[in-house]
Amino acid sequence: MHILEDAVAPDIERMLWARSVAIVGASSDTQALRGRILEIVKGHPYAGAIYPVSRSQAEVQGLKAFPSVAALPQPPDLAVLIIPAKFVPDELERCGQAGIRAAVILSSGFAEEGSREGARLQDEVRAIAARHRMAVSGPNGEGFANTAAALCPTFSPVVEPGRPLTRPDARGAVAVVSQSGGLAFAFFDHGEPKGLPFRYIVTTGNEACLTAFDFVDYMLDEGKTDVFLLLIEDIKNLATFERAAAKALRAGKPLIVSKLGQSEAGTRAVAAHTGAVAGSHAAYREKFEQYGIIESRDVDEMIDLAGGFLAFGDRLPAGKRVGICTSSGGGGAWIADACAAAGLEVPELDAATRATIDVHLPSYGTSQNPVDVTAQAVHQMGYAEFARLLATSPAVDGVIVVITGRYPRLLVGDRVPLAKLARETQKPILMWSYTKPAEACIELMREAGYPLLTDMHACARTLRAMADYRAARDHFLRAGYT
Amino acid sequence: MHILEDAVAPDIERMLWARSVAIVGASSDTQALRGRILEIVKGHPYAGAIYPVSRSQAEVQGLKAFPSVAALPQPPDLAVLIIPAKFVPDELERCGQAGIRAAVILSSGFAEEGSREGARLQDEVRAIAARHRMAVSGPNGEGFANTAAALCPTFSPVVEPGRPLTRPDARGAVAVVSQSGGLAFAFFDHGEPKGLPFRYIVTTGNEACLTAFDFVDYMLDEGKTDVFLLLIEDIKNLATFERAAAKALRAGKPLIVSKLGQSEAGTRAVAAHTGAVAGSHAAYREKFEQYGIIESRDVDEMIDLAGGFLAFGDRLPAGKRVGICTSSGGGGAWIADACAAAGLEVPELDAATRATIDVHLPSYGTSQNPVDVTAQAVHQMGYAEFARLLATSPAVDGVIVVITGRYPRLLVGDRVPLAKLARETQKPILMWSYTKPAEACIELMREAGYPLLTDMHACARTLRAMADYRAARDHFLRAGYT
Repeated sequence: MHILEDAVAPDIERMLWARSVAIVGASSDTQALRGRILEIVKGHPYAGAIYPVSRSQAEVQGLKAFPSVAALPQPPDLAVLIIPAKFVPDELERCGQAGIRAAVILSSGFAEEGSREGARLQDEVRAIAARHRMAVSGPNGEGFANTAAALCPTFSPVVEPGRPLTRPDARGAVAVVSQSGGLAFAFFDHGEPKGLPFRYIVTTGNEACLTAFDFVDYMLDEGKTDVFLLLIEDIKNLATFERAAAKALRAGKPLIVSKLGQSEAGTRAVAAHTGAVAGSHAAYREKFEQYGIIESRDVDEMIDLAGGFLAFGDRLPAGKRVGICTSSGGGGAWIADACAAAGLEVPELDAATRATIDVHLPSYGTSQNPVDVTAQAVHQMGYAEFARLLATSPAVDGVIVVITGRYPRLLVGDRVPLAKLARETQKPILMWSYTKPAEACIELMREAGYPLLTDMHACARTLRAMADYRAARDHFLRAGYT
Repeated sequence: MHILEDAVAPDIERMLWARSVAIVGASSDTQALRGRILEIVKGHPYAGAIYPVSRSQAEVQGLKAFPSVAALPQPPDLAVLIIPAKFVPDELERCGQAGIRAAVILSSGFAEEGSREGARLQDEVRAIAARHRMAVSGPNGEGFANTAAALCPTFSPVVEPGRPLTRPDARGAVAVVSQSGGLAFAFFDHGEPKGLPFRYIVTTGNEACLTAFDFVDYMLDEGKTDVFLLLIEDIKNLATFERAAAKALRAGKPLIVSKLGQSEAGTRAVAAHTGAVAGSHAAYREKFEQYGIIESRDVDEMIDLAGGFLAFGDRLPAGKRVGICTSSGGGGAWIADACAAAGLEVPELDAATRATIDVHLPSYGTSQNPVDVTAQAVHQMGYAEFARLLATSPAVDGVIVVITGRYPRLLVGDRVPLAKLARETQKPILMWSYTKPAEACIELMREAGYPLLTDMHACARTLRAMADYRAARDHFLRAGYT
């Protein structure tokens, strides 16, 4: 059980792991957001109690409804508010008086409007939350998903009723924390088919009370999240950020961040979106570097980064030298260029390693690096043995294997050696498929312990980020920030 | 029918549109490349005659086989050679003597080996081709696919037997010409699910005789290819390159090129792969700029570029100012940053356009640009009307619409206005889905006339490339290079 560092800190655990949830404003109309959210909460195997609160209906979507939070049989752990902004403060006050200690406010119409009235409503929310020591997320968020609890108080269509949310994965788990609701769930949508195991997707909206880094801090204390994908528009509380960022770096749990609002138009957009003040990106970048935070600008790249850290976060590269092993000569050349563009080195291999590889190559292959093993040799030997030989070279810190994941045929026979290699290698080994991989290949590689990447630039940047992260963490630990 | 500019030029049409094809070295073993190629040729509805040539078998895969090309009932239009390198010159000579005027050499073991013997064999091939005025592609290539003729003399698993190759598309067609075989077919593999209509995939390997730009030149004369995706390791013949590049720019048929071997390791790799001398990338870049050639470094981005040009190549943006219209506030901010990174401008909209948009927005939306129309307004109005209003603004040269393509629900009702807009707009309109799009949405958008992009950076760079291409072409035409 998580022990709060600060006795008066709001209880995030009660929110994310609520054993009962009231949905205030729930509707029978599943085409409307107010109906959709209840449909989604009901549509997953959540074990807790669900209480629709409706002023007009006695029953909503087959569940007994209550006229107000005061009328509930017990104060639920969590209240979800989806009612017009102007009613939110009074309702939140009623929640506090009813003994509810966590609330998610999905309603829009607060500081993001740029109006005095919107700002006033948001200030009221903040004051009420503080008075009742409530954990409050939002307003103007899209709720969250706790996949292990199957608790999804959100209207995001991405977690539609019945969609499986999670599957066990020995490598660990990923959390998404994002001010933007649509994009937060887009991470799940893009990452789930790539086999990324998600534990939480949390949207924070305007962050009137809890900020993204409050949630990161909680999840670090909980100790069950290994990689964080963060989408932020501003840092509302520098102290919270610094505490969480230092804690993450100490624990070796990478924070992969995209900071929105880097351009003038982007800055305008985030102000209108969540009332964020984007600020100077150079200042953000400096803070990110201080804590080894990995910056990215792209959802798919962030997913690839997460997959790389999840698989090989305990065996990060000691430097930037990469060995490339390929069945396609052109593919090897292309990703060698991508590695150079990402600031990696692709050195010629040492003679001893070349000799161990050469014995397996036809005359038109080469072991120089990129190692072009040729399609013919891969047909005979598979990829694993070449990758293993390459990883043993003292000239490289990590390996990229260029494969075709078009058909499982080639990989099936290689499954056992691939899995053995993933367990035993002391250097990260990333797989890039230059063809569009079949689902069976993605799954086979996932089970063997590798993310199967399709974007060569993301692949190269992942290896680079892993090397940078190791260097930043070593520096941080040496400097005694423990 | 294509009329050759030069009477003695080798007949590429006879190769790509062969009405009969001999496969020299064909085998019954479909696990081997020599068997796979025949299986693939047979596995598509190719209308021409197929002649296996085998010294040891009287029948191969159910087809009557012939002991040599001299024994064929007629000289086929095309001979495909998949025999050991050392036998290739003699066999090619026999082909020439038998009256065969086009050959594809798939065998490896030539100049890419870096050996004197490999270079000598390749010189012999070149001499024999010249003597017989044969159109010869390769060696060390992966053959080609002509989708309209269903002719696939290749062992690429991407065009496996039975896989549909093409579908009619009023927008035009794309050709891939690549020195690398695996990557050439990877373009088809990545692009076909995105709805890109491919006419040709041609691999050129070591380019002993015909180079990539000979094929481009032929396709331009043929006039049925609208966008070219080229993957090159070197330019073997500058005059051919310049003739084809100028012809393409005059015709407004964009060449989208990735040049392999930009880094030291990449240069090593292409030398080993096809014997290419990568050369100074700065020199290549200068030539590319001179002819408005669009450079890219990524297969998916190249496909997105092709999709953009195919849809709106006749309505290229007059400048770099982009209007963004989004149902996700965060998505709008993110792609605004991506546009800035791509060198586009995202200006605030003019007051008149804002007024026409504002009447449809809830209070928490904004028309500033990015135009955050909000999920609510999109639910009511769809995307098309907002995109139309935005495209009429004098402040923008092109439009990006941020959508969720997760479910067709929202788009189905918008289908007719979207199609009307695609036909009538005078400015390009690109669609970026921040969620993983459903196939039905990709198809719906394709039918409406839009490529559905999933990579925001590729989306921004596509608009930028379209603006640059228009500027380069205008300059070229004004300068009188006609």
